[in-house]
Amino acid sequence: MKNRVITISREFGSGGRTIGKKVAEALGIPCYDSELIHKFAAESGFDEDYIKDVGEYAPGGFLAAAFSHSAIGPNNADYLWAIQYKIITELAEKESCVIVGRCADYVLQDKADCLRVFVHADMAFRAERIVKEYGDRNKSPEHRLKNKDKRRAAYHRFYTDMKWGHAQNYDLTLNSGTLGIDRCVEIIKELY
Amino acid sequence: MKNRVITISREFGSGGRTIGKKVAEALGIPCYDSELIHKFAAESGFDEDYIKDVGEYAPGGFLAAAFSHSAIGPNNADYLWAIQYKIITELAEKESCVIVGRCADYVLQDKADCLRVFVHADMAFRAERIVKEYGDRNKSPEHRLKNKDKRRAAYHRFYTDMKWGHAQNYDLTLNSGTLGIDRCVEIIKELY
Repeated sequence: MKNRVITISREFGSGGRTIGKKVAEALGIPCYDSELIHKFAAESGFDEDYIKDVGEYAPGGFLAAAFSHSAIGPNNADYLWAIQYKIITELAEKESCVIVGRCADYVLQDKADCLRVFVHADMAFRAERIVKEYGDRNKSPEHRLKNKDKRRAAYHRFYTDMKWGHAQNYDLTLNSGTLGIDRCVEIIKELY
Repeated sequence: MKNRVITISREFGSGGRTIGKKVAEALGIPCYDSELIHKFAAESGFDEDYIKDVGEYAPGGFLAAAFSHSAIGPNNADYLWAIQYKIITELAEKESCVIVGRCADYVLQDKADCLRVFVHADMAFRAERIVKEYGDRNKSPEHRLKNKDKRRAAYHRFYTDMKWGHAQNYDLTLNSGTLGIDRCVEIIKELY
């Protein structure tokens, strides 16, 4: 039998990562989030900070067009995507788990028994959360959120051809701002 | 205290209407769906079949542009929209209830304590359901589904400026095809 995997895509600041951890804890299965970055680093030889960054940038713009793999072979982002694809597939083959981010919903679409979840919340809720979690920065929390959202959506679209945040791509989408983090955890846990 | 209203938007054939009825039954509150059409007919003087049809057509195309309300005053669809808006608002003021379709999520956004739900499912699941529920037609079920989806999305966008099926517009979206109708009912009931 295929393992059961919960994939969680999320808007920055919506608490999707926290929800993933809590669900995994409650179900007694592992949650892969930053752990994935260690694995990608070990396999690729790239620095962890670099991987975090690349994972949110879709190849695009003039330079990407000029140096795209159709012209001179795959770039670093493509190389990382291939490693990510392989590691996520191996994880799902090995055990039931929660995987946060990294387009795992797309990677595993025909490979595992997946519950595909998307977590989002409005700007005010997320702005308050990121300041509490990550502290203040030069740029306003709203600016940081818009920037991250745009990058994640573009990355997702580039590698999966799916529209990020479209209900039709998921089994379940949850507004953590109106439902609350703990309610979201309960719903996912019950469905598993 | 504001009444609590569950609004259910749904893709044609996804079982959103059935889910609404079952949730309302379980909670002991009324569910407005075809009942809304009677009310619109009584208030507007239009025929019920005509109302059902107009409710899924967004004003658009050459004729609509030529005869839009900016040129010669509101058309029938605009008039019905105003009545719909008024009746849905009155219902939510009067009692807690479930309202299926008719952009109730948008109408009630600042007027009631709403749980905004969107129900969807993949083509195969919906095709099977509509043949079972409404019988065969000349056109294939896939053709009928695409047609209805397009109309509902256009109608929704025209009158609400919101993107239909975007997770961010709802508290909860559910894939009835993968989760099953009864599971969807349970989740909504628990959240209420």
